[in-house]
Amino acid sequence: MANVIDEIASYLAPDLARVDEHLGEILDSDTALVREVGKYVLSTRGKRLRPILAMLAAKVFKYAGEDHTKVATALELVHSATLLHDDVIDKAPLRRGKPTVNARWGDDVAILIADYLFSHAFSLALSTSVSPKVLSIICQVTARMCEGEMFQIEKRKALLTRDDYLRIVRGKTAYLFSACTALGAILARAPEQQVMLLSAYGLNFGIAFQIVDDTLDLIASDDEMGKPHWADIRNGKLTLPIIYVFETASGKDLKQLTECWENGRDPDVIVPLIEKYGGVQYALSEARRYASTACEQLADFPLSEPVNMLCRLADFVVERRN
Amino acid sequence: MANVIDEIASYLAPDLARVDEHLGEILDSDTALVREVGKYVLSTRGKRLRPILAMLAAKVFKYAGEDHTKVATALELVHSATLLHDDVIDKAPLRRGKPTVNARWGDDVAILIADYLFSHAFSLALSTSVSPKVLSIICQVTARMCEGEMFQIEKRKALLTRDDYLRIVRGKTAYLFSACTALGAILARAPEQQVMLLSAYGLNFGIAFQIVDDTLDLIASDDEMGKPHWADIRNGKLTLPIIYVFETASGKDLKQLTECWENGRDPDVIVPLIEKYGGVQYALSEARRYASTACEQLADFPLSEPVNMLCRLADFVVERRN
Repeated sequence: MANVIDEIASYLAPDLARVDEHLGEILDSDTALVREVGKYVLSTRGKRLRPILAMLAAKVFKYAGEDHTKVATALELVHSATLLHDDVIDKAPLRRGKPTVNARWGDDVAILIADYLFSHAFSLALSTSVSPKVLSIICQVTARMCEGEMFQIEKRKALLTRDDYLRIVRGKTAYLFSACTALGAILARAPEQQVMLLSAYGLNFGIAFQIVDDTLDLIASDDEMGKPHWADIRNGKLTLPIIYVFETASGKDLKQLTECWENGRDPDVIVPLIEKYGGVQYALSEARRYASTACEQLADFPLSEPVNMLCRLADFVVERRN
Repeated sequence: MANVIDEIASYLAPDLARVDEHLGEILDSDTALVREVGKYVLSTRGKRLRPILAMLAAKVFKYAGEDHTKVATALELVHSATLLHDDVIDKAPLRRGKPTVNARWGDDVAILIADYLFSHAFSLALSTSVSPKVLSIICQVTARMCEGEMFQIEKRKALLTRDDYLRIVRGKTAYLFSACTALGAILARAPEQQVMLLSAYGLNFGIAFQIVDDTLDLIASDDEMGKPHWADIRNGKLTLPIIYVFETASGKDLKQLTECWENGRDPDVIVPLIEKYGGVQYALSEARRYASTACEQLADFPLSEPVNMLCRLADFVVERRN
């Protein structure tokens, strides 16, 4: 499979270049440490899925303005800021194969540069001619992401149900994707009904994305992940493959899993149980289901390059290995 | 001296009650931990100086709308959020005599609840009918506060000059006060020239406030401070009383101070040197100078209750002992 991300990046090349310009402008600070750390953060970004989704969604409705690159940049900044705070919270040493900001400069710097990026996300969104609605969605999604993380912390010592897990996934990941596609549509003044469809696409895309992300922690090598695997097990984060084993195992296996989860969480005990019950395969099949649901939202749209790309992107997200 | 804060709180009682209502509404979250921690944060607030300044500034221009309480709440939320992040950064155990959120719930919860408050600060400001200019000032001041903190970190191992110190004080503290009074004036549609005067009042007020705060770390008892004193010395934060000793001492004293500051920073060596050179008295005289400059900005305003209160508040800030 040719990498659909490369193809989309080429299709959106001028727009992504504008996003990079906006990001660069944000680092224009009097404070050397802000410039240094900010540059590092922006140079270690990932696949730029959030700006890509926002801008593709705008192009579904033939948006021809300039504001979509600013809104896409704002969404990318919100994402980068939350990753920075997440890495402090998880005491993560690596992200995408490179030292995290907290590992390299300390928690204080990571917290502050994230706050700086948050402020600039809102500033950038404000600098557009878009409606207060756009801004209000960005604020809402940021608050919801915090609530998702707080709910995860609240449940840290509990055995998560599947509903709890999905609530966390929506909060931590899917609402932001949903905001991306919804905002693209809103920018292009799409009718309310179509905004809802794009929003639902993003939500389902995001759930698929996060479920796959959680399986990668179990199956990818450290090299593919760019960070130590089994981190979720070690951090006591219950994800779908393990929840599935809790749901389907019984007798000795369930007893062993429960005891192990509550005491030390040894991956050498947990991983074989996931394998025995096919937890990863099950989770991936669920991810595929959410990705299909994402695509179905677009079924009634006239076929176009961006609609086609959004659908292929949803498939790609399930097949990816990093 | 009758407590001017109480008098102002009584003058602004209906407005402050609305601020409390707005704050309460923000805690209306589905996530129990958000409600619990949020309530704790809001119940351990301080003197509410920022909303007070914003609302007094609006009243200088006879503002009669409703938006000033929302903007004042947003500013208070930005302040609360930055305190939460500061306490994580400083690993502070106490604030105003109570355990900090990081001490009680952990760094993760403190970081996230602060992000939650930030988001709601912007949401609340957005929900007003005010101009994008107001929102943009809130974003700018938030970014500047991060830059101030980052500059302090960048200079952590250096011997701060007075200019460096003042840059940090403006960034960490004074710009937010300046935004408060400027926004109050802008809300009331004050002419540009008067907005500048109110902005300058807030900036000078904020510098005076922070200089006094820094002296309290040296002279107040733990009880008065509500947190362990000499914390700045222990954390390696150079403040005006010590910078003054660096500037004025010579020979043996300067050598001793320099060596001690670079190695271990024993308060039992540093505090007597500050006393010998009158560092605290000097810093307080500087604070008084900034407070006077704050009041001078208002000299040409027709005398009114809010103008009078702003002036007395600047004096109070220098005389306070907690």
